[in-house]
Amino acid sequence: MDTNRLQKQIDFILEIDQEKEIYRQTHLSRHGRKENDAEHAWHMAICAFLLKEYANEKINIGKVMIMCLIHDVVEIDAGDTYAYDSEGLKTQKEREEKAADRIFGLLPDDQRDELRALFEEFEAYETAESKFAHAMDNFQPFLLNHSNGGGDWREHNVSISQVLGRQTKTGLGSEELCGYVLEKLEEHVKNGDIREDRKKTAE
Amino acid sequence: MDTNRLQKQIDFILEIDQEKEIYRQTHLSRHGRKENDAEHAWHMAICAFLLKEYANEKINIGKVMIMCLIHDVVEIDAGDTYAYDSEGLKTQKEREEKAADRIFGLLPDDQRDELRALFEEFEAYETAESKFAHAMDNFQPFLLNHSNGGGDWREHNVSISQVLGRQTKTGLGSEELCGYVLEKLEEHVKNGDIREDRKKTAE
Repeated sequence: MDTNRLQKQIDFILEIDQEKEIYRQTHLSRHGRKENDAEHAWHMAICAFLLKEYANEKINIGKVMIMCLIHDVVEIDAGDTYAYDSEGLKTQKEREEKAADRIFGLLPDDQRDELRALFEEFEAYETAESKFAHAMDNFQPFLLNHSNGGGDWREHNVSISQVLGRQTKTGLGSEELCGYVLEKLEEHVKNGDIREDRKKTAE
Repeated sequence: MDTNRLQKQIDFILEIDQEKEIYRQTHLSRHGRKENDAEHAWHMAICAFLLKEYANEKINIGKVMIMCLIHDVVEIDAGDTYAYDSEGLKTQKEREEKAADRIFGLLPDDQRDELRALFEEFEAYETAESKFAHAMDNFQPFLLNHSNGGGDWREHNVSISQVLGRQTKTGLGSEELCGYVLEKLEEHVKNGDIREDRKKTAE
């Protein structure tokens, strides 16, 4: 047994423990506290497994699950960037690439390269697995927020244009789930949970 | 799209959100707060992916990951039973089977049967995947506790016989990782983190 190799793997495993203290803007169902990155990733991976029948394309579910589980590792250094924080989004890419260098760099070289490639594939949003993992990254917090009557949208005064900008991309991974989400979003607009900012077309 | 089917899947997804509020006896690394079931399952699944090279037998890693992710779902009803709580352990099986009936029963029938079978396979401790998932169920909290100087063992006044009773089973999934653990445990006995209760053999 190569104890140096195992030690590197353990260093990484203990490093990512910090994801459990990175809190997101989404609240747990039943009007709970804010959710952290580790919980979000766990929930996303289970969503992927249970909802894989709705993927637009054939996917390797094992690959989607590990992609979901590690996609937020970079936030240990870069922090969570709220999906509707336009200032934070400007520097997000640069901060996250630097974090990926350091954190995946703790692993043995072969696993550093493997996980980095999975992370970059997720970010590139091009493969079937990446598109479905992103769909889960949108669908999971949507479900929590929807179950809480849209409280997270109200708290941040989010508009329907902003939500649609993000959630229509869910359709790249799953048109069926996207259809479900869009239907529910209109109900939240009607209820005033999401701000209406679309121009009305002439009748 | 069968909206009744999707609704059942969503009901299950929102039900298991409660795992995020079930706290274990293990503390996060860096002397943090107690860990919850969702965080533990997330961490276990990543450990499985990164440490699969140490499995005694050939394993289907996708199957191990989903097994890790859902293995504690029953604790939503049955609660967490500490590995060294002898009273709680007596009724654990009965409590958890009842919980499995209710919680997996929220899913569409085919997925109820699939996840129930994965859970029962994990519990039976017989297949290669189950043995490796159990190894991760032991190794992950060991790593956290080890990184904290064995504080969880001291807090519960745990003896080496108790720890060995659990951790030697790690060897059923991975002899290599078990060897690493046993070596570190002796250091914790020497440091007084774990109580020595083995009889000394005559010299």
